[in-house]
Amino acid sequence: MINELQDYLAKEFDIHFDDPALLAEAFTQASYVNEHPNQNLKFYERIEFLGDAVLELIVSEYIYKRYPELPQGKLTRLRAAMVCEDSFSKFAKECHFDQYIRLGKGEEKAGARQRPGLLCDIFESFVGALYLDQGRPAVEKFVRRVIFPKLDMGWFDHAVDAKTSLQEYLQRDGDVKIEYHLLDETGTENDPEFHVDVMADGQVIADGHGSSKKHAEMQAAQNALNKLRKQSN
Amino acid sequence: MINELQDYLAKEFDIHFDDPALLAEAFTQASYVNEHPNQNLKFYERIEFLGDAVLELIVSEYIYKRYPELPQGKLTRLRAAMVCEDSFSKFAKECHFDQYIRLGKGEEKAGARQRPGLLCDIFESFVGALYLDQGRPAVEKFVRRVIFPKLDMGWFDHAVDAKTSLQEYLQRDGDVKIEYHLLDETGTENDPEFHVDVMADGQVIADGHGSSKKHAEMQAAQNALNKLRKQSN
Repeated sequence: MINELQDYLAKEFDIHFDDPALLAEAFTQASYVNEHPNQNLKFYERIEFLGDAVLELIVSEYIYKRYPELPQGKLTRLRAAMVCEDSFSKFAKECHFDQYIRLGKGEEKAGARQRPGLLCDIFESFVGALYLDQGRPAVEKFVRRVIFPKLDMGWFDHAVDAKTSLQEYLQRDGDVKIEYHLLDETGTENDPEFHVDVMADGQVIADGHGSSKKHAEMQAAQNALNKLRKQSN
Repeated sequence: MINELQDYLAKEFDIHFDDPALLAEAFTQASYVNEHPNQNLKFYERIEFLGDAVLELIVSEYIYKRYPELPQGKLTRLRAAMVCEDSFSKFAKECHFDQYIRLGKGEEKAGARQRPGLLCDIFESFVGALYLDQGRPAVEKFVRRVIFPKLDMGWFDHAVDAKTSLQEYLQRDGDVKIEYHLLDETGTENDPEFHVDVMADGQVIADGHGSSKKHAEMQAAQNALNKLRKQSN
């Protein structure tokens, strides 16, 4: 399975391990080691410990530099959304890492291969092994392909509010003036409805409704993001 | 205060910032920024966010490599003991960083300068600034002096059991055979006492008592560690 994995990594990611034993360790669960007591195998947990910290730093540094105006609280929320079991297990699936995990028979039967916790671990241990074997630039190249594009695809919008997301999205390549205007206020005093639009450099890009001005602006920002992302796909 | 800090860092740590504004940011609390609204200052929180991840990786990588036999659970406990408010605030004090923090008057009066939470933040933000300004090797040099020696001084023994600590201590420079021998079992059936000694390469280095064989061995290991550390000081 490790030979196939090496071929796959070479073909798909142009990744070539100098030390295949490290790669094997990263994809081997304890249950497999226990079933092969004479092969002197190692399982992934120690490398995963390292990979976790590697990912934490690379993601932190990327969002720190990419969003120079984002305050710490939002950076922390964004990082937590990116560096977590839910995200990492999805990345592992997307990279087809589930196909290459070495599991014991009991774990296999119990469906461990599709368990998010295991997939997340394997994603981290793969990164740990890549870091040890090929150094940080190789990890950065991998992460630039697998993780960072998800920021523009809106995967982590929920971690940061829509107005902030829209600002970051529009200002990726330079300054853009973003304005929200109140168009209308209807409803009753106890049940008001606000209608706003949002402009980018003087052009209306979306509008939104809400029970407060703030909610209407958030809605407008989210609508704008949805439109812009649809256009860029 | 930042000029004095630069002089101090140069003299004490041979650290020379290319961008003093980054260093100033790392040592400035929000309360100071609020009191000087016209100076367009930044406070430390964003850099601290980055510094935290830098320290996590450098510590993780160091203990991963230094303790090749330590399983993940113990690595994680050890890292948690090293990378935490309690440790970082002590490192900050030891480095005299408390003297250089820029605080608002209210915070100063309230005693913030000695608050472990703030000292910990400043330690992280200093490391973040050093990383951004001078790169990872400069951080490694700093951490090799300030953090790693505490491992040999026993600061983090509580995170790993004494037998493991003794093993790591003795085997730093190569393989050493460690054996525990039961010398005596006294007391009653309900209140037994065990007496063991611990040998390194055939030489008794300490003994210990306990209500179980395991406890007696732990005690012997702790006594051995205490002796060895006293000798090496």
